[in-house]
Amino acid sequence: MPVAEFELIQRYFSRQDKNDQDLILGIGDDAAMISKDSTTDYVIAVDTLNKGVHFPVNTSAQDIAYKALAVNLSDMAAMGASPRFVTLSLSLDDNNEQWLADFSQGLMQTLDEYGVSLIGGDTTQGPLSISVQIIGEVDKGKALLRSGAQVGDKVYVSGTIGDAALGLDLLLNNKLDPGNSDHQYLRNRLNRPTPRVALGKQLAGIAHSCIDISDGLLADLGHIMERSHCGARVYIDQLPVSDSYKLTTDDLSFALSGGDDYELCFSVAAENEQKLQTLSRELGISLTCIGEIIADKELQSIDARGEQVEIHQQGYQHFGAEE
Amino acid sequence: MPVAEFELIQRYFSRQDKNDQDLILGIGDDAAMISKDSTTDYVIAVDTLNKGVHFPVNTSAQDIAYKALAVNLSDMAAMGASPRFVTLSLSLDDNNEQWLADFSQGLMQTLDEYGVSLIGGDTTQGPLSISVQIIGEVDKGKALLRSGAQVGDKVYVSGTIGDAALGLDLLLNNKLDPGNSDHQYLRNRLNRPTPRVALGKQLAGIAHSCIDISDGLLADLGHIMERSHCGARVYIDQLPVSDSYKLTTDDLSFALSGGDDYELCFSVAAENEQKLQTLSRELGISLTCIGEIIADKELQSIDARGEQVEIHQQGYQHFGAEE
Repeated sequence: MPVAEFELIQRYFSRQDKNDQDLILGIGDDAAMISKDSTTDYVIAVDTLNKGVHFPVNTSAQDIAYKALAVNLSDMAAMGASPRFVTLSLSLDDNNEQWLADFSQGLMQTLDEYGVSLIGGDTTQGPLSISVQIIGEVDKGKALLRSGAQVGDKVYVSGTIGDAALGLDLLLNNKLDPGNSDHQYLRNRLNRPTPRVALGKQLAGIAHSCIDISDGLLADLGHIMERSHCGARVYIDQLPVSDSYKLTTDDLSFALSGGDDYELCFSVAAENEQKLQTLSRELGISLTCIGEIIADKELQSIDARGEQVEIHQQGYQHFGAEE
Repeated sequence: MPVAEFELIQRYFSRQDKNDQDLILGIGDDAAMISKDSTTDYVIAVDTLNKGVHFPVNTSAQDIAYKALAVNLSDMAAMGASPRFVTLSLSLDDNNEQWLADFSQGLMQTLDEYGVSLIGGDTTQGPLSISVQIIGEVDKGKALLRSGAQVGDKVYVSGTIGDAALGLDLLLNNKLDPGNSDHQYLRNRLNRPTPRVALGKQLAGIAHSCIDISDGLLADLGHIMERSHCGARVYIDQLPVSDSYKLTTDDLSFALSGGDDYELCFSVAAENEQKLQTLSRELGISLTCIGEIIADKELQSIDARGEQVEIHQQGYQHFGAEE
């Protein structure tokens, strides 16, 4: 419940931060920050995956372990932080040794891949649930925040968006053809999203604002708008969608409103666009300008004919006719 | 599944720590530790409570919020650390506004009581589950570890033990009489355990080893023995039990094997026993010597007649005859 989540946290759990000099950033961004030493802050995020809610019931243990880490690594990417440590809280409904062995293997592989240490945790009895807390670090003053967007900034997204939501849609509607390589690609994007850690670290110092796309492009860009007190204009014909996406559907709503891609959405000053091209080449990640930050506190969607169209953040609207 | 938990973590999630100078202490104690600055370490623990497993289904939202924090605060106490920050991961099965309002109130009250800031978290859909991650701090080299016990140390426990397990037993067997003030006391000890934060901080620098009693005295003392490569002798007629406990049962097994009291079990050199008496008076917490650390790697239980009796860590054995 992505939007409800935001409202719930706002209503019941956010309040004036205590006057604590070690608390650098509290509730409201991709992660919190506490002071480490005179040059560095620790960056802290937590994300929980529940069976049947965040992954289909028959997802493999390795894929679940991967994704539980990936969504947290993505929060570090969105802050421009280097992931360092994780703790794991694992609720298990039964003592399936094979499942645990597979889960553990998937977890350790991914930890190694990103150079992160598992430092603690607990296992408890209960419906399958995986809660990972991650701790990263970032140079003081260099973290990427949702609140830093400036009017005139260009809005970018990394990679392609909508793949994961489209893969989930195929899966849930029993339309996923295992022999179809495009379908396989989309499912893999759902189960194995790539956290953009290297990109996030490079964007620290270049981008003005950043968020990872977990709730959907429009919802997450909305979070930047709210925290930065601004609006945005999005050119929907510029949204980067994959070939597999295009070959599977002409419905753009997955790219606009589907979550779970864990690409980065960020804003940069126009004079830094050149740096992004270099960065894109170095990292081998496409970076696509999809719009700009505007002063009016609204989201304007512009179609291929340059006309403003009405779109809604929630639900899957159909825009195929504009393609 | 307290014992299974330990085995699972050992088997699947512990491995050689990375060579990371900021990682002070990994898996295997009440909490992990990472370096803050030249004088201080951050101490990190996570504990999850699941409905029907860690609290009876009809437990009030305030009590659940209290306990979710208390078990984590207790981990800080066991390390001798000062709690500073928490993150909350909350899985909710429905959007019950009244429940959320009550939960939030209970959480905020307890945070204020202990001077701790809520800095982040997430809410997700799923069976009711509350995962709290806590971050405290402790002076470098001063943390209380499970691994520091020395042969000849006296073994102490704070407060009284077995109350919570006895309260739970009454509750689960429908024997709890709401008009009985002793039963109320025991249930309150279950729902509202007192994390011994002030005591833990004072013990840092006095005690050689420490753990909080969450799995039961014998199991938790066993963790100290394992990590300190030693054994212990326990005088079971010395176990501190409350008047309400004595008036309700003569079965000592709740005190020996029942968890959830969140008292501290710690070992001190004999020459520091005098300091404990002063500390006990200052804090208004009883501190009772229940045994000593021995070289033989076994747990010896001594009854009132000075004879060794056989007890088992698991299950509820009956020792009333010895009283």
